[in-house]
Amino acid sequence: MVELCLNSRYLLGYLVKEKLALPQPPIIWAFLFFSWKPVAEYIDQQFEQYFRDESGLNRKNIQDNRVHCCLYFISPFGHGLRPLDVEFMKALHQRVNIVPILAKADTLTPPEVDCKKRKIREEIEHFGIKIYQFPDCDSDEDEDFKLQDQALKESIPFAVIGSNTVVEARGRRVRGRLYPWGIVEVENPGHCDFVKLRTMLVRTHMQDLKDVTRETHYENYRAQCIQSMTRLVVKERNRKPNLTN
Amino acid sequence: MVELCLNSRYLLGYLVKEKLALPQPPIIWAFLFFSWKPVAEYIDQQFEQYFRDESGLNRKNIQDNRVHCCLYFISPFGHGLRPLDVEFMKALHQRVNIVPILAKADTLTPPEVDCKKRKIREEIEHFGIKIYQFPDCDSDEDEDFKLQDQALKESIPFAVIGSNTVVEARGRRVRGRLYPWGIVEVENPGHCDFVKLRTMLVRTHMQDLKDVTRETHYENYRAQCIQSMTRLVVKERNRKPNLTN
Repeated sequence: MVELCLNSRYLLGYLVKEKLALPQPPIIWAFLFFSWKPVAEYIDQQFEQYFRDESGLNRKNIQDNRVHCCLYFISPFGHGLRPLDVEFMKALHQRVNIVPILAKADTLTPPEVDCKKRKIREEIEHFGIKIYQFPDCDSDEDEDFKLQDQALKESIPFAVIGSNTVVEARGRRVRGRLYPWGIVEVENPGHCDFVKLRTMLVRTHMQDLKDVTRETHYENYRAQCIQSMTRLVVKERNRKPNLTN
Repeated sequence: MVELCLNSRYLLGYLVKEKLALPQPPIIWAFLFFSWKPVAEYIDQQFEQYFRDESGLNRKNIQDNRVHCCLYFISPFGHGLRPLDVEFMKALHQRVNIVPILAKADTLTPPEVDCKKRKIREEIEHFGIKIYQFPDCDSDEDEDFKLQDQALKESIPFAVIGSNTVVEARGRRVRGRLYPWGIVEVENPGHCDFVKLRTMLVRTHMQDLKDVTRETHYENYRAQCIQSMTRLVVKERNRKPNLTN
């Protein structure tokens, strides 16, 4: 399941409507909270459900509702990250794969987008936020693939634009925004990173996102659960002899 | 003097650089405060200085630094006015002519601009904010002038866009913003209301702005001053007989 945590209402409509063009649309939740707590609770609930199902007798047909990805939308109007952004991402980065997004990128010219992206990347590093790390390319991959991979890594945070209409542009119908000075095309790679993000999410990196969730985030949750349960059992055991004495 | 109170940094650079293209550039101050107090204090100081000069012996060469207009920039990203906007304008509307501006209008498509303007106008009325009222047309004015005047009144809040570059467009050099999907031209009336605002400020309504400042805002201030002074003198007089007794 791909989970969307939106802090920008601009893309909400578009993403929900489009369901990110996934072949089998995942359940999409849009969070417009000003606190990370409900989001963290939701992620934990899914882990808990999976943990219960996995510990039960019938382990064959478990429905996996664990959150494999959280798209975190950063406002293009600030000077980098706001304190809320830092708090939000730091509270979630041990629980879920965070992919940062630069929202409403049609307010910024290309040099401004580059500058803002650099600033956000620097701040992510400065504040020790662990966003989703794209896996390194195999050394035997061809050059084209390596370049593509490099470009993808350098696109972070992905600059996206939400459409509000379908318009005719260059002889075909495109999703976009119609300004007096031109048509913003959401799916034009020269206008924003929407296509890159979609390709990453549904084609090239979906499996890796699931793997990292399973091997890292869920294992962390499971280890904590087992630890608390063990502690509880030991406590219970220590109590019992006292009661029988 | 035209005074600019900016709560948006987007237009700051442009307006300061351009000095609003006034023939005799006025002094331009840009306030980026989150409180109305320093702005109100500044306006009052100018009134006080004028009041002192006017009450002095040499009344011929008074330099008039009274604030004749306050351009109040409203963010295009909210849903109408923020509580701060309401507080700010209500604190100043008895002191200065407020002209509300919709900042960074290149983030909104024309229907969105119309919708936002309508919402802001409704809220200005709802909260009882007294913005600068354009004087009514004389009944003997020609039709063209009346239509122009009507269009001006309906443009409130003026939607403006700040340029960050000078580019070649349609064979001439224009100030604007260069997006991959087109060039936003600041001085193109089809793109924003900048020219309308400039014409209003420096040509058609400058004298009326000054008149309203002199006849209403300054007179209010002066009346208050005289009232407090009279009260002080009466108090002083009442005290003296007691001392001589």
